[in-house]
Amino acid sequence: MVVGEIALQADFMVIGGGPGGYHAAIRAAQLGRQVVLVEKEEMGGICLNKGCIPSKILTAAAAKLESCKKSSIFGIKVGPAEMDFDSLRDYQNKTISGLRAGIEALCKANKVEIVKGNAFFLSESRIGIEDGDKYEIYEFQNAVIAAGVSPEEPKDIPIGSRAYSQWDISFLHDIPGHLAVYGSSAIHLEMAMAFRALGAEVTVLLPGDAFPFDSSIAKELARIFKKERIQLVKDCKIHGVVEKADGIELSVLTHSGEKAIEASHLFMEANQQPNSGSLGVSRIGMEMDEEGFILVDEQCRTSIQGIYAIGDITGGTFLAAKAIRQGKVAAEAACGQNSVADFRFLPTYSFTRPPIAAAGLTEEQATEENIAIKTSQFPLAANGFSGLNGSKDGFVKTISEKETDVLLGVHIIGEGAHELIISGILGLEMAAREEDILFPAYPHPGIGEALLEAAEGLGEKAVHIMPAKKKNRPVEAR
Amino acid sequence: MVVGEIALQADFMVIGGGPGGYHAAIRAAQLGRQVVLVEKEEMGGICLNKGCIPSKILTAAAAKLESCKKSSIFGIKVGPAEMDFDSLRDYQNKTISGLRAGIEALCKANKVEIVKGNAFFLSESRIGIEDGDKYEIYEFQNAVIAAGVSPEEPKDIPIGSRAYSQWDISFLHDIPGHLAVYGSSAIHLEMAMAFRALGAEVTVLLPGDAFPFDSSIAKELARIFKKERIQLVKDCKIHGVVEKADGIELSVLTHSGEKAIEASHLFMEANQQPNSGSLGVSRIGMEMDEEGFILVDEQCRTSIQGIYAIGDITGGTFLAAKAIRQGKVAAEAACGQNSVADFRFLPTYSFTRPPIAAAGLTEEQATEENIAIKTSQFPLAANGFSGLNGSKDGFVKTISEKETDVLLGVHIIGEGAHELIISGILGLEMAAREEDILFPAYPHPGIGEALLEAAEGLGEKAVHIMPAKKKNRPVEAR
Repeated sequence: MVVGEIALQADFMVIGGGPGGYHAAIRAAQLGRQVVLVEKEEMGGICLNKGCIPSKILTAAAAKLESCKKSSIFGIKVGPAEMDFDSLRDYQNKTISGLRAGIEALCKANKVEIVKGNAFFLSESRIGIEDGDKYEIYEFQNAVIAAGVSPEEPKDIPIGSRAYSQWDISFLHDIPGHLAVYGSSAIHLEMAMAFRALGAEVTVLLPGDAFPFDSSIAKELARIFKKERIQLVKDCKIHGVVEKADGIELSVLTHSGEKAIEASHLFMEANQQPNSGSLGVSRIGMEMDEEGFILVDEQCRTSIQGIYAIGDITGGTFLAAKAIRQGKVAAEAACGQNSVADFRFLPTYSFTRPPIAAAGLTEEQATEENIAIKTSQFPLAANGFSGLNGSKDGFVKTISEKETDVLLGVHIIGEGAHELIISGILGLEMAAREEDILFPAYPHPGIGEALLEAAEGLGEKAVHIMPAKKKNRPVEAR
Repeated sequence: MVVGEIALQADFMVIGGGPGGYHAAIRAAQLGRQVVLVEKEEMGGICLNKGCIPSKILTAAAAKLESCKKSSIFGIKVGPAEMDFDSLRDYQNKTISGLRAGIEALCKANKVEIVKGNAFFLSESRIGIEDGDKYEIYEFQNAVIAAGVSPEEPKDIPIGSRAYSQWDISFLHDIPGHLAVYGSSAIHLEMAMAFRALGAEVTVLLPGDAFPFDSSIAKELARIFKKERIQLVKDCKIHGVVEKADGIELSVLTHSGEKAIEASHLFMEANQQPNSGSLGVSRIGMEMDEEGFILVDEQCRTSIQGIYAIGDITGGTFLAAKAIRQGKVAAEAACGQNSVADFRFLPTYSFTRPPIAAAGLTEEQATEENIAIKTSQFPLAANGFSGLNGSKDGFVKTISEKETDVLLGVHIIGEGAHELIISGILGLEMAAREEDILFPAYPHPGIGEALLEAAEGLGEKAVHIMPAKKKNRPVEAR
């Protein structure tokens, strides 16, 4: 360690160039700070280079393929639709490098200096950056740690060449013959459905007994899995993997005993460990939890004055959405603003087919918290636009507090869910009451009307639901 | 006229079974009223049978066709995509009759009695209904007039067999070789773009000098028209139509003089007249405007105690969205509730490619009203999801009041506009300020982030816009 060298001055340092990091950097620059951003690999982080973006290109491709196949209901005749995986890879690479160049250009335009290397805290105000033979010390006023997490090889299962993690599943060279998916997080469900659309046989092995959504969404998703002929095995644990020449054999423990499942490939989530160890934060006394995730307050302040931490390295849910918001909050807080990172309504978001999006309490969470609620579910099959568009699967579910009519949760599965949920997020954040949702005129025909009718249903006033059994009988109408 | 006959008792009468009428009927039934609904033709009205639904099936088909063609960027290989117009017609018919059956089933389940016939007011509390030889008189407590409008043959232009109005354009048997579209309303722009996607040559003749949107949207739409090779002629007036064996010749007056335009077919809007004349409302003294549109207050009350009017027959914008809201308000008001039909934020909504949706003030309206505003425009080309999804055309524009930061308008052109606008509508209605939109975490990657960045841009804080020229330089980033 070199101590006593002349340090470079850095007003505002960001460690990590993922979505959280570059948002923090640019926001700080917008607020007048001189920013240095340290990245040891490529700008954009896991999200752009390995996670969100490549996997969403894959799910988008699967959705387009499916859409082409289903367009025959409109009288559209296309030949047999096929996927050229090499072209898809090219599109992934081109898109990722384009987005990366965009981030770099934005940093440059905001005068954010990007420095390559590994960062290490020397003191509460000094960071050393090592890049091969090069070593420099920076003295900073503020630092934002956005160093993320790294995958850990599973200890109990020997993973071989036929097993993928969330970091490589989006980059396969061929469509697996039979993909076994072990896990229930968004990426698992997305990959299961995408590869199914691309022609793979798919078996989903759920560690628990349900999908991690409101129970109504989980039920609808299970129905769609069945329709898509995706095998579903619940309550299971893989305890053995044997690789063969032409496939992989999984030993799976279920409630009903041992089960052998053969597949061509396995996708399972790798455990993620915070990258705090190599940063030297423990030796400057930064508070962390037992696993090494950095503890922060709602302004993303760590226990060390002037140093903030954001994104996956702060634990909780690993979501770019959260890291981005934290990045801005940290930058703003460091500039004296009173911004707060509040994740009460952090959206659930999955690029399944159809997509899922939700915010606020699930019915189960509300019940657990002993809140007296009303719930209402409006099926998209009863929505005029979804009907004519041939996208009848799914629904909008709303949950409100019985006494106050205040909106507590919005849960959507269906085409348009990802866009429609924004109104749910805004409504929740502004403490909308049922009457706020009922007041406006909604574009017709459109799935916004499904949100309206789900809200009307809280007072038993949805128009396109049969009056006797409001929750269960969709009616094609409009 | 038969007077003095024994009248049937009808607690709550609705005249007209279009979207406004059946919503009024079902809402009144939900509130405990005994409802009789009179329809002279088919349930669902113009919207279902001739307007919104058939035209949106056509635009959806065009969008799907276009999507199939563009899916090659994802490595999807389909043969040449073609449209079988007969199959599309079958799908239209099947969808329309399915939706109509749904409405009838909902009415039945809500004990709404549907009576076929022409309605005529005999007094302030009596309606006669004539259906061929059958004639019956009903005595009502409340009535809701939802009798709509009818097309009027244009007086100054001789319309022949090669000219279509908004009531028949969705039901063509063949794709026109060259469609001339005269008008600038949503249906004109939709049909122009749909038939273009289906392979027709298209010329749009604008009566004015711009599309009826915020100027930024209008500009982007003009750019897309150009890209799609849709001819655009501004500031023109058709003053002569000559039908030939193989086409139609239009004499068009423009600023630069007379112009002859040849096309195979013409689509122009027929003028719409209120159906109040045949209802006998003038003889009971109901107040109307000069053209015969019924005057109503914000609870849809006419000048006659106990009688309400809703939808197109009340004039203003002819939109199902408005009729539906008015229908519910009229029913609720008639049941003593204090509901109000407030159309300050009535959305603009067009199924162009990409779609357009807006609510609140345009930049031009705000300027005209002397409101000091901030505006911000975030291009979808700079949104991560739109980028990877290959849907980079368009933007989200936000307008806020300079002094208060209160949101005044949201204008969107781009994939997802129709769903995303719901958050705009809700935000406007709840008087959201910029900070309300900035507070939540937005799902990533998603176009909700474009709304966020458009709102951030109001304070010059959008991250994915170059700092120097914030409004003009989209950057691919994320």
